[in-house]
Amino acid sequence: MASQEIENLVQALAKLPGLGPRSARRAVLYLLKRPETAMKPILAAMERVDERLVTCGICGNVDTQDPCQICSDPRRDEKSLCVVEEVSDLWALDKSRLFPGKFHVLGGKLSALDGVRPEDIGIDTLIRRVEAGGIDEVVLAMNATLEGQTTAHYIAERLENYPIRLSQLSHGIPVGGELDYLDEGTLAQALRSRRPVNQD
Amino acid sequence: MASQEIENLVQALAKLPGLGPRSARRAVLYLLKRPETAMKPILAAMERVDERLVTCGICGNVDTQDPCQICSDPRRDEKSLCVVEEVSDLWALDKSRLFPGKFHVLGGKLSALDGVRPEDIGIDTLIRRVEAGGIDEVVLAMNATLEGQTTAHYIAERLENYPIRLSQLSHGIPVGGELDYLDEGTLAQALRSRRPVNQD
Repeated sequence: MASQEIENLVQALAKLPGLGPRSARRAVLYLLKRPETAMKPILAAMERVDERLVTCGICGNVDTQDPCQICSDPRRDEKSLCVVEEVSDLWALDKSRLFPGKFHVLGGKLSALDGVRPEDIGIDTLIRRVEAGGIDEVVLAMNATLEGQTTAHYIAERLENYPIRLSQLSHGIPVGGELDYLDEGTLAQALRSRRPVNQD
Repeated sequence: MASQEIENLVQALAKLPGLGPRSARRAVLYLLKRPETAMKPILAAMERVDERLVTCGICGNVDTQDPCQICSDPRRDEKSLCVVEEVSDLWALDKSRLFPGKFHVLGGKLSALDGVRPEDIGIDTLIRRVEAGGIDEVVLAMNATLEGQTTAHYIAERLENYPIRLSQLSHGIPVGGELDYLDEGTLAQALRSRRPVNQD
């Protein structure tokens, strides 16, 4: 049907999360109809990102500069560190400026099943950052999965003898969540960490 | 949050059909994590398509060669011509080799509302192809929309004095369709074009 080059582009795009062969085909048709207004801008943006892509040597974020924008931002609180599994988690937390401090991206989570050990992810660099001093608070913002929580426990143990406040994200009912639709695990957590009504 | 370059890529991708800001962000994160295995192949494929993209001078298909692969394929029946609105329609029909002949892409449909007149789409080139001779059959494969059908009627009128068989796609109940869920227009068409049970 279409030429091999067009077919290759469809196949390459179809691997993106959220796209499949059919939507990749629609996306390519959209691009083919708009070579100047759609294809060129994506191509230019992707080339620039591809040329300049670096992993931040301090926190593990991906950016087009090293140190990354967050690490080199003087308005951010250097004393607070939020530890996340992936860059996507950093973006999610940072989107609405929820955390005023700096970040540390592990680039994975401990997993016996997948054979991911502490030395495979950015735990040693985290310990070194804390060791170097100047950090008062570490917030563990792992996902609420078994592996995320295992990772958080492991890090908490490694950090317990440093003079820092160590905390983790609270678990419970998501805002807007209805009890009827929540799993037992979340309900149990919400009940276990219940707080006095007038506390905050 | 992310650098301006990354942000630009997210915004460019978010304009693709089927993607929005959130899925574009996920797609970009996917690319950033896999610069070699995901970003480079897409970039290379897109560059090649962008460099070589041409509109076929004969049928209006987009391809990386002119005449396009379909027009230059000697195994296809030169005497049959299927007229479609867009390249996407050509792809949809051609995917499973449904039509053994050649195609003609109008690149739009007549529309009083959007001010699209016959001279704005590939109708004159179609007439010229038929005039040049060698074509026995023209299949009008417009969409079953008001504008698609208006376009088909107009083309049928323009072609009525040429020695060709002129047909259009049949309308009716889609395969797998349940009467209960179909609109009245489709039901009316299916009833109007009913056929004897043992006909084929």
